Amino acid sequence: MFSQLFIPAFDTITAQKARTRLDYLAKIPGSLGIIEDLAVRLAGITGKEYPSFPQKTVVLFAADHDIALHNVSASGQEVTEQQVRNFLKGQGTINAFCRTANAKLVVVDCGMKNDMPALPGLVHHKIVHGVRDFSEGPAMTREEAVMCVQLGIDMAYEQAQSGTGLLACGEMGVGNTSPTSAITAVFTHAKLEDIVNKGSGIRPDLVKQKCRLIRQGLELNKPDPRNGIDVLAKVGGAEIGAMAGLMLGAASLRIPCILDGFIAAAAATIASAIHPGVSAMLVGSHLSKARGHALLMQHLGIPTYFDFGMHLGEGAGAALFFPVIDNAVRILTEMASLKELNIDRCNT
Amino acid sequence: MFSQLFIPAFDTITAQKARTRLDYLAKIPGSLGIIEDLAVRLAGITGKEYPSFPQKTVVLFAADHDIALHNVSASGQEVTEQQVRNFLKGQGTINAFCRTANAKLVVVDCGMKNDMPALPGLVHHKIVHGVRDFSEGPAMTREEAVMCVQLGIDMAYEQAQSGTGLLACGEMGVGNTSPTSAITAVFTHAKLEDIVNKGSGIRPDLVKQKCRLIRQGLELNKPDPRNGIDVLAKVGGAEIGAMAGLMLGAASLRIPCILDGFIAAAAATIASAIHPGVSAMLVGSHLSKARGHALLMQHLGIPTYFDFGMHLGEGAGAALFFPVIDNAVRILTEMASLKELNIDRCNT
Repeated sequence: MFSQLFIPAFDTITAQKARTRLDYLAKIPGSLGIIEDLAVRLAGITGKEYPSFPQKTVVLFAADHDIALHNVSASGQEVTEQQVRNFLKGQGTINAFCRTANAKLVVVDCGMKNDMPALPGLVHHKIVHGVRDFSEGPAMTREEAVMCVQLGIDMAYEQAQSGTGLLACGEMGVGNTSPTSAITAVFTHAKLEDIVNKGSGIRPDLVKQKCRLIRQGLELNKPDPRNGIDVLAKVGGAEIGAMAGLMLGAASLRIPCILDGFIAAAAATIASAIHPGVSAMLVGSHLSKARGHALLMQHLGIPTYFDFGMHLGEGAGAALFFPVIDNAVRILTEMASLKELNIDRCNT
Repeated sequence: MFSQLFIPAFDTITAQKARTRLDYLAKIPGSLGIIEDLAVRLAGITGKEYPSFPQKTVVLFAADHDIALHNVSASGQEVTEQQVRNFLKGQGTINAFCRTANAKLVVVDCGMKNDMPALPGLVHHKIVHGVRDFSEGPAMTREEAVMCVQLGIDMAYEQAQSGTGLLACGEMGVGNTSPTSAITAVFTHAKLEDIVNKGSGIRPDLVKQKCRLIRQGLELNKPDPRNGIDVLAKVGGAEIGAMAGLMLGAASLRIPCILDGFIAAAAATIASAIHPGVSAMLVGSHLSKARGHALLMQHLGIPTYFDFGMHLGEGAGAALFFPVIDNAVRILTEMASLKELNIDRCNT
């Protein structure tokens, strides 16, 4: 499956060249801290000592989850559609952050419950009308799960063809912290009580109920952590599969894909279970307030760069990071070297 | 002194209005974490519920320090001029970061040792030809110190008149971590050994020598922490005084001034000693790797928002933060409210 997909290795030689260049720029060596690490990572992913990302795109996948019918979310399922309409009007957080970063936003219905009309900016690729309640059986069939991942791969190729050099993934799906928590438990073996957030706006008794439902779903479905598609189909979601696909597609094209928070990290974990080489080709952004996020990022071995106490989703944390990516790239490409300035060493 | 300068109070009523608005936007309440706190701070500083900063400017003050002649810096004094020339050519870190943020950079010679020719982009306001070695006597006269602060105030007014709504301060001055460490010791009473960085690129024996020199300067000059101008004149520097002035001028105009790292925090501490009301009107950005930075920010009671392990100066950390400021402002001004979307509560 996805056997045609070749994921190239992180280019350590180019990464090392970038590191060496950074040490000889007109600044105190190492003084840009993790921005230098980020620049090196971008060089290694792209295979370019001087990467450049004139067009950036956030692909936001929207989908529903019947587990939300148990009222384990503070919002009803109708909010998925309302928020998608809000994004299409340009009035969501992700829209605001994309405007600052001069990034394009593509909204994809990959699994919304409701059928959406043809609205400007909305891409119709519905695979399921919401995934089924995984506390009572598999969320998707294996075929549906594969289609979700393939959709994400296709979206990466489509965006690359239309000029995108940097991708980020976002999502909207009421209830999707439940499958994400399930995926986290499957791969990290952490206890659900240490994964599920009190902070998501639901009452403490509902947190218990949420843990109980997720546990029931895990025991019933027995997802196999050695098989990413199995986990995705049984306890995942359409947007999670599509995000995993976007990451795999991006990696195969040497396009950095910026992760957002908890849901994106679960998708990255699915992607990594499908193809372990993908992790080195992904870029973290913020550390979410969602408790399971750090567990997943540790599992993936992907660093995060800042902690604003955010827990929104939508791809907001990734879009917020775009200007930092721009700055990391500019350091590599626009700064004078010490040699050009005839300085031996630069230090204040 | 500076008695004509009125610094308005942080506008708590407008800040509260902004906080209330944030809670009713189409997102999970509090889900944007410290970006929401930042938006509230910007509203309180400007007195505007919907602040807007179309023009941002970094004012970078360059100056020299004869204490650097003791070789307590890894660079020679000539690097101040070389780096200033590099900034004017657009090839420094601060230039790159300003381009990403669409910000203007103004470079001011307020105390460089060398006389600079008329170069495009360089503003000539030299007050001293480098400040004197404070280990052997006062760095400046009281009159020079006052002139430095007045220059900063004037620069804030000048930039405001030409349309700047958001300021940040930067600096270039080989040796300026020594006066900054001295100022930190004066105001925080921390031990010099806990302030002076090993990480600045000098050998361990030179760190000891640096501490010894600073201690000698403090014992000789006896700067009075109740008197900001006294501290600035005795153990400060021209660019530190000018930055302090920029902050005071900005605060009096209700223009947020974004702090950078260690040197900027020392300037803010001087500004705050001159007029305690200024702290509430300033905005932190990154937490520097320089050990004394956290001590000063704690003393000032000004939060920092991210830690990239940077220790460069130039205003780079502040410029890096500009896009986050833009995003905080866009949240207040461009997002739909739950009411507009007919949503009771938004939570996933």
